[in-house]
Amino acid sequence: MTLTGSMLIGQHAVSGHREAIRAINPATDTPLEPAYHGGSGEHVERACALAWAAFDTYRETSLEARATFLETIADHIEALGDELIERAVAETGLPRPRILGERGRTCGQLRTFARTVRAGEWLDVRVDTAQPERQPLPRADLRQRHIPLGPVAVFGASNFPLAFSVAGGDTASALAAGCPVIVKAHGAHPGTSELVARALAQAVKACSLPEGVFSLLYGSGREVGMALVSDPRIKAVGFTGSRSGGIALTQAAQARPEPIPVYAEMSSINPVYLFPAALQARAQGLAQGFVTSLTQGAGQFCTNPGLVIAIAGEALERFIGTARELLSPCAAQTMLTPGIFSAYSVGVGALAGHAEIAAQGLPADGPNQGRAHLFVAQASAFLTNEHLQAEVFGAASLVVVCADAEEVRQVSEHLEGQLTATLHLDEGDVDEARLLLPILERKAGRLLVNGWPTGVEVCDAMVHGGPFPATSDSRSTSVGTAAIQRFLRPVCYQDFPDTLLPQALRQDNPLLLRRLLNGQREA
Amino acid sequence: MTLTGSMLIGQHAVSGHREAIRAINPATDTPLEPAYHGGSGEHVERACALAWAAFDTYRETSLEARATFLETIADHIEALGDELIERAVAETGLPRPRILGERGRTCGQLRTFARTVRAGEWLDVRVDTAQPERQPLPRADLRQRHIPLGPVAVFGASNFPLAFSVAGGDTASALAAGCPVIVKAHGAHPGTSELVARALAQAVKACSLPEGVFSLLYGSGREVGMALVSDPRIKAVGFTGSRSGGIALTQAAQARPEPIPVYAEMSSINPVYLFPAALQARAQGLAQGFVTSLTQGAGQFCTNPGLVIAIAGEALERFIGTARELLSPCAAQTMLTPGIFSAYSVGVGALAGHAEIAAQGLPADGPNQGRAHLFVAQASAFLTNEHLQAEVFGAASLVVVCADAEEVRQVSEHLEGQLTATLHLDEGDVDEARLLLPILERKAGRLLVNGWPTGVEVCDAMVHGGPFPATSDSRSTSVGTAAIQRFLRPVCYQDFPDTLLPQALRQDNPLLLRRLLNGQREA
Repeated sequence: MTLTGSMLIGQHAVSGHREAIRAINPATDTPLEPAYHGGSGEHVERACALAWAAFDTYRETSLEARATFLETIADHIEALGDELIERAVAETGLPRPRILGERGRTCGQLRTFARTVRAGEWLDVRVDTAQPERQPLPRADLRQRHIPLGPVAVFGASNFPLAFSVAGGDTASALAAGCPVIVKAHGAHPGTSELVARALAQAVKACSLPEGVFSLLYGSGREVGMALVSDPRIKAVGFTGSRSGGIALTQAAQARPEPIPVYAEMSSINPVYLFPAALQARAQGLAQGFVTSLTQGAGQFCTNPGLVIAIAGEALERFIGTARELLSPCAAQTMLTPGIFSAYSVGVGALAGHAEIAAQGLPADGPNQGRAHLFVAQASAFLTNEHLQAEVFGAASLVVVCADAEEVRQVSEHLEGQLTATLHLDEGDVDEARLLLPILERKAGRLLVNGWPTGVEVCDAMVHGGPFPATSDSRSTSVGTAAIQRFLRPVCYQDFPDTLLPQALRQDNPLLLRRLLNGQREA
Repeated sequence: MTLTGSMLIGQHAVSGHREAIRAINPATDTPLEPAYHGGSGEHVERACALAWAAFDTYRETSLEARATFLETIADHIEALGDELIERAVAETGLPRPRILGERGRTCGQLRTFARTVRAGEWLDVRVDTAQPERQPLPRADLRQRHIPLGPVAVFGASNFPLAFSVAGGDTASALAAGCPVIVKAHGAHPGTSELVARALAQAVKACSLPEGVFSLLYGSGREVGMALVSDPRIKAVGFTGSRSGGIALTQAAQARPEPIPVYAEMSSINPVYLFPAALQARAQGLAQGFVTSLTQGAGQFCTNPGLVIAIAGEALERFIGTARELLSPCAAQTMLTPGIFSAYSVGVGALAGHAEIAAQGLPADGPNQGRAHLFVAQASAFLTNEHLQAEVFGAASLVVVCADAEEVRQVSEHLEGQLTATLHLDEGDVDEARLLLPILERKAGRLLVNGWPTGVEVCDAMVHGGPFPATSDSRSTSVGTAAIQRFLRPVCYQDFPDTLLPQALRQDNPLLLRRLLNGQREA
């Protein structure tokens, strides 16, 4: 497939007229062809008009048709073959095995949502049948299902060029819910985006769906992004990126005549607690696991362990010492973009002004290479210095040294909202951990014991979310099958004749759903 | 029970220092004792501190303990006996049978939420067990439950002094979710609020719960209301009232360092469609049902039928003629407060400047009596004049006369978001109705056939919600058991030892929940 540098508005390849975006191979700092010219308001208008026109048809596709569509997208992405892998490696500097794994996750995610769509639990069907004889007033027949919100704007993430980009988690869950999707591609991987978008558009065509079910736009956040979020036909937004970017989108969405929900996954430093008995017993092993998690993918994960919390002492010294030994020979790693590398350098520099450098990896020997950093600060400093809580996207982490369990508690209460919190503990730590859990439940979306927060499973029980600023909406997850719920709303049908009811609510339950029927869950 | 004029901060009766609020009996325009002095920032601070202190304990009460608490509240409200009924009648001007019915609904609602709490489906438990042998990577053990958001601020509604006030739907669903509640009483019924608040506080005590589970404050929206919504310990807001009030609260909640969700139920004119065959066959009967629904409770319902949409012709003339005959002898009815009466008068006056008066009820013969009004306008006017779509809270409605089905469609697309949309149809109308349904599903939370929108059943399938401006969050309902979901968020536990897991997630499933276990729903 030859890359064209075009946007995709429905089935139509359209060239933008704004400034050209070219991907840069961060490993060599060289630009990649072709140029992608940014779109403008007119392209947003056309994509929104198509999405709106497609909505009523797409949202009433059968469960089977919609599931098949998701599976067809996965098939078409796989059919892109090595071209996709090579382009994604070139655009991101990520190693080939990582991109291969991410393609697997992306396609697996689409197929998982297909299963979720077929199962139909997301419809949350509730039926309360009529009670015409009830005193003092009869009860009407009332039936509830969920319907999709409407067309969704998705902003691709920089750090998952496949799994959280054009056909990633936000897109998959919105399409599963029955929402047309307009993706604004991330400027860091336009070629990868074009390839995946064409696979997706082929699936739209193969499944005979209205073309407006999917469009891909390029362009600036200020022009194309804001026009998308402000368009009255867009009814929800999915975003993964910076705190400032997420807040700007949320504010724009709230300023509309009709405000809409924004699901922004933004900022998290993912505290890791090393409890005393565990630290005493296996400081070295913990340091090893920590350094592996910290440096994986150049630390460019939302769930990167950016904070370690432990009580001062010889065991913590051992942990830091081993981490230093392991980190010092770590080669600097190519980061995703020159911009991300530059922000990382600035962030590390800022941290160095407020905390002590405990260890650093090898210096860079090529462009855009991030050097891993480990800092140490006292809890008293952490509690009074907000700079120490700022996310530094990359392989940087801060050890917060606490005097005692009470200071651990204070540091925990002082934390902002997080995607994850991790507890390393042995049996002797269980009582202490139990005391901390209520705080951590209030602070984070996912709590882990004796693991590392990087690596997010796509499954039913996953929560990739959490209180602000981890996300803009703690009531949801952006990874896992529950992500579909972000794009749905309930509608109740009262005293409808069967012929006018949607299939999910008909008297004979043709979809074989386990309804909540007169207060009882059907078997 | 002697009314004291005090707020209730936890178990403590506290007098405010701000300007006195006195209820006014709207039927006689006379003030009622005692005076209720408004609270200030210090009272908000104390109530929030107590609520925050209570949260971690209250949210981990057993399902049985929490359900019993809700039932105990209902018992204590009933035990208030006639004093509550008389005070509510005096403060609202609503007839005694209506208040009796509303008490029944309020207590029934609390007991319904008790059943919901016990059933435990709201926990949405999902378990994906470990797969240590999985290739290329093992899967961790992942378990999800829902936990409450935190303390909730509830703003009582004017028009439901019991069912949507101190112990009404917002409070009941927040308490059911495990959230402490701080109510800001509506100034129109402070005595009713005090009585119910004391019953609720007694239930807190009887159930040995931390006192901060519930507090009642009086005062101005600008001072007490804004302080509540801005307090960092408040994590969600429930509100029923005006569009401007709801928008102000939502903006304040978004402007916080940590934005929080606001569930504001605001403005709806509840379109009623009279399809041709139904109108032809039973114009008079429809007019009768319409006038009954319009004038019930002086039209002071969120679901009052404020808009009638039909195609021009002899049958519609008959409908309007009969409505005129029935409406003209209708006595003016006392409205809830002088302020609401005044706003109604202004709203009716404004409508009269843009539409023709088709009928009006008898003039007032006492203070604060709203005179029912029916207006008529052409669809072409409705489509171009936003004044015709403004909610007039009270017994006023507008008939929009359409030239044909296409104009009905245009009017429908032009509507703002609604709580309800009603279709009156006969068999011959079904095909036409089917074409309109996709639009109405996009516009409203509840669709009715051959009924009237007033009268909202508290059940599992109810949706009392809808797109903006009907509510600030269309993804939820404020009436019915699904309302509990507004105050919850998911948390995932990864590789937790059984002893540290909450009961709902333990391996042996002690709460006997129907979990989603490895993708399968348990029987």
